[in-house]
Amino acid sequence: MDKDLANLKVVALAGGVGGAKLAHGLAQNLTPGNLTVIVNTGDDFEHFGLYISPDVDTVCYTLAGLANPETGWGLRNESWRVFEALEDLNAPRWFRLGDRDLSTHLERTRLLSEGRRLSEITRRFCAEWKVDQTVLPMSDEPVRTIIRTQDGQDLSFQEYFVHQKCQPCVKEFYFSGVDKAKPAPGIIVKIEEADIIIICPSNPWVSIDPILAIEGIKAAVTKKPVIAVSPIVGGKAIKGPVVKMYSELGITPSATAVAEHYKDILSGFVFDEIDKNEFENIAQWRIIPFVTNTIMQNFGERSRLAIEILGLSKTII
Amino acid sequence: MDKDLANLKVVALAGGVGGAKLAHGLAQNLTPGNLTVIVNTGDDFEHFGLYISPDVDTVCYTLAGLANPETGWGLRNESWRVFEALEDLNAPRWFRLGDRDLSTHLERTRLLSEGRRLSEITRRFCAEWKVDQTVLPMSDEPVRTIIRTQDGQDLSFQEYFVHQKCQPCVKEFYFSGVDKAKPAPGIIVKIEEADIIIICPSNPWVSIDPILAIEGIKAAVTKKPVIAVSPIVGGKAIKGPVVKMYSELGITPSATAVAEHYKDILSGFVFDEIDKNEFENIAQWRIIPFVTNTIMQNFGERSRLAIEILGLSKTII
Repeated sequence: MDKDLANLKVVALAGGVGGAKLAHGLAQNLTPGNLTVIVNTGDDFEHFGLYISPDVDTVCYTLAGLANPETGWGLRNESWRVFEALEDLNAPRWFRLGDRDLSTHLERTRLLSEGRRLSEITRRFCAEWKVDQTVLPMSDEPVRTIIRTQDGQDLSFQEYFVHQKCQPCVKEFYFSGVDKAKPAPGIIVKIEEADIIIICPSNPWVSIDPILAIEGIKAAVTKKPVIAVSPIVGGKAIKGPVVKMYSELGITPSATAVAEHYKDILSGFVFDEIDKNEFENIAQWRIIPFVTNTIMQNFGERSRLAIEILGLSKTII
Repeated sequence: MDKDLANLKVVALAGGVGGAKLAHGLAQNLTPGNLTVIVNTGDDFEHFGLYISPDVDTVCYTLAGLANPETGWGLRNESWRVFEALEDLNAPRWFRLGDRDLSTHLERTRLLSEGRRLSEITRRFCAEWKVDQTVLPMSDEPVRTIIRTQDGQDLSFQEYFVHQKCQPCVKEFYFSGVDKAKPAPGIIVKIEEADIIIICPSNPWVSIDPILAIEGIKAAVTKKPVIAVSPIVGGKAIKGPVVKMYSELGITPSATAVAEHYKDILSGFVFDEIDKNEFENIAQWRIIPFVTNTIMQNFGERSRLAIEILGLSKTII
């Protein structure tokens, strides 16, 4: 660990797998108390009576070193006894539930039914999993990302993302419940204390926008230097429907489009070498463009990208 | 199968393991369409957000030949992956949840959240498990057996039975919600059509009384010949707290005490050879006493006891 970088106070905004990977890279290079990850809960849902928080789980499992390296989500060395038995009962099988993963959902649901808050439960699980960094769900109140399709349907995120495999055409997004949701305890203070805010390479529309839509979070973030990392590389997504969404919304999917999405709050923007000809597009908005290899194929690449972003942070703050 | 006996129309009232064993014996000797098992749901509870119906599961698993032969409850060839992971999370471990058993609770909870009724879900599960007999939960509405202890506490059944291992002293019982509960669809008709009602060797206080407390069930049963089987043998219980309960209520635990409990509705009473000196006690209430070996240690003994009871039924109806 480079001491100079390790002492930076960082707040990362993250959604699913891409966000978790960069958070993990940052965790390898920061004093644990200096990294806070604020995680999207717009994808949370109830299934089989259980409260499931996919992005929070992905971030926690990844930081704990427990994540399945092949899928990015779920647990490694997972077994599927319950899921196989559910299949025997002809139960819905569109959302895969691993045995160990189920224990997370069961205990979280039990604790919620006792009146505990999602942020408190997340802290408790992190302690069990020996995650020393701070992981905060964006809110303890329910906020649900709804996909409005071009044929006028409103789909919950998991219905769109997992059940319908992102096939419907997207028209717009909204975040049900966001008007009544407050940031989880500690979020605003952590942002105020941060040296830098890093927006992970997550989906701007459905992973980062829900976080920024919570009352007070965008305002707090805006007062700080912010660096975003593009989830679009060479016009393609590393994972997920981000490119498809941009196209359906009538926007050419590119690093530039991601930077433009965030341009009011960005100080710096990190994007891939393959897109280096977009450098001037970024610079036009007085955002510092930073070109590097942004694809994280292993633990070493997560760490290397994190170090480069932290180095860029030092030049910005 | 003895055709003469197999054509009897039987309604059995059952609670947990003892009830399930006799129901299984009856199932081996009756045309499937002729056996209806009405099952106690006073033990049902929510745990980890899941709706658990222990007696219904025990009866269904037993009739399906899926039950764990060593415990009487739960499934054979069960695995405990989720339960072990819950232990790693320091979750409560007082109620054991097997992996395949969990799939039952998950799918039932999901179907309930869709608005399906417990009786409908039970029918659906029985079809999956190839149970051809009719299994009816006593009611689709929630009825919860509450144990009032001698030190004035009110305990839910599972809290008393599993968590506190039946240690508190019992003062009385009541069935929360029973005033608003209706018999599950089909129960009254099945009783009216029955040739004989058989009260299985289940706990009178907490397995059979809740069933008889549902509006209309006792009245319908009273119009029919009824045979009960004693769960007390030689002053001891085969399983569970029935003897401890009788003692704490100030009643000497015996076959006679069980017969007295039901005496207003009984035509016949089946009890163990070891208790044959209680013959005259039973006869005094104009109940036909029937002495045999009532302990069911294997499938053959379940069947043999069922045949004897069906034979007795023929002499009564």
